[in-house]
Amino acid sequence: MTVKIITVGEDILGTNEEKARANNKRLDGYGILTVDIMSSPGAGKTSLIMSTIKYMKEKARMAVIEGDVASSVDADKINEMSIPVVQINTAGGCHLDANMVESALNDLPLEDTDLLLIENVGNLICPNAFILGEDKRVMISSMPEGDDKPYKYPAMFADSDVVLLNKIDLQPHLEFNVDGFKKIVTGLNPDVIFFPVSCKTGAGMDAWFAWLESAVKGKKNR
Amino acid sequence: MTVKIITVGEDILGTNEEKARANNKRLDGYGILTVDIMSSPGAGKTSLIMSTIKYMKEKARMAVIEGDVASSVDADKINEMSIPVVQINTAGGCHLDANMVESALNDLPLEDTDLLLIENVGNLICPNAFILGEDKRVMISSMPEGDDKPYKYPAMFADSDVVLLNKIDLQPHLEFNVDGFKKIVTGLNPDVIFFPVSCKTGAGMDAWFAWLESAVKGKKNR
Repeated sequence: MTVKIITVGEDILGTNEEKARANNKRLDGYGILTVDIMSSPGAGKTSLIMSTIKYMKEKARMAVIEGDVASSVDADKINEMSIPVVQINTAGGCHLDANMVESALNDLPLEDTDLLLIENVGNLICPNAFILGEDKRVMISSMPEGDDKPYKYPAMFADSDVVLLNKIDLQPHLEFNVDGFKKIVTGLNPDVIFFPVSCKTGAGMDAWFAWLESAVKGKKNR
Repeated sequence: MTVKIITVGEDILGTNEEKARANNKRLDGYGILTVDIMSSPGAGKTSLIMSTIKYMKEKARMAVIEGDVASSVDADKINEMSIPVVQINTAGGCHLDANMVESALNDLPLEDTDLLLIENVGNLICPNAFILGEDKRVMISSMPEGDDKPYKYPAMFADSDVVLLNKIDLQPHLEFNVDGFKKIVTGLNPDVIFFPVSCKTGAGMDAWFAWLESAVKGKKNR
């Protein structure tokens, strides 16, 4: 299986929200749960996706869209796990948009997919303003980034359905107030679902897997 | 001393490069070394600035411009150290630009400044495209982000004069290949100056301070 790479040029334009609604309707037609995963660079998006594939691949038919400014190193890793994947290179762009996702959908086996994970570009600011057609928005904040991030980048914390606090295995070596962090996040976003996890050790991942499995079933049974 | 806060509206426009050249000329007139500090969220920009103030404040007259999407928590910390500081809130914008910096310069005592540190918005993509009038660009990459970041965000690594690899105190708990990382960075940027440091423990900071002190003197003696 070779990895399909889309390089985004200026000819891909259009109104983002309209296109996102069309993507959502198209994915709905197949009963696919679509999750947009956002975070800072290096917070653990690819690690989360790989752990999730290992757990979920026997339970749901998965596909992945990988967004990056450059390179296809992440898509290559997903491809090695025999999961259909499309790499989008934004050529300097700081977020995915609905047009890019539409192009990627054309290269995925939607009729054989239950769960689509979209890894957005590593950025705590710009991706938040562009809906893609997703059902759920998941953001990862990693412990080494510090417990003040919700103050500084409030919009993404406010608009996400789920916040994963990753790299909790490093907690003994950091000064990070988990209760304080959770309090700021729920202040911005009272309905948020919060999972402290370590993609490295697996700590806390069961709760994330259970939530995701339930959401996939919920989408199928609508 | 109260912290001056600039909230950026749509009325601040203009051509960025022209304005940046004007800022640079203005700062040159005062013999001020100006450094633009860029990184992912939570990589250690504020920690670097605070450590640098502690070391440099007896050696050079310093001032700071703090860029954030929201909040003034960083500027408040700098203000407590009795260093002139202006907070720029970008109101959702993902980078500083030369217009914002020009506004901030109007509120700083330039005639009494030798070294101006500008903390850009936490983002590995957008700030790179906007020069501000700086003499040097310094980027911080932190070890927990992973050693593959130069592959994924090559432009900022390629265009920075200095790359600081921060949080090396966490190395025993991470899988991070320092030599491999340095090799990718110097491949993108053969003239880069590379400092592995820990702002937390102080490891490696002497080399950074020596470089900065020398650059401040070089600017004064031109």
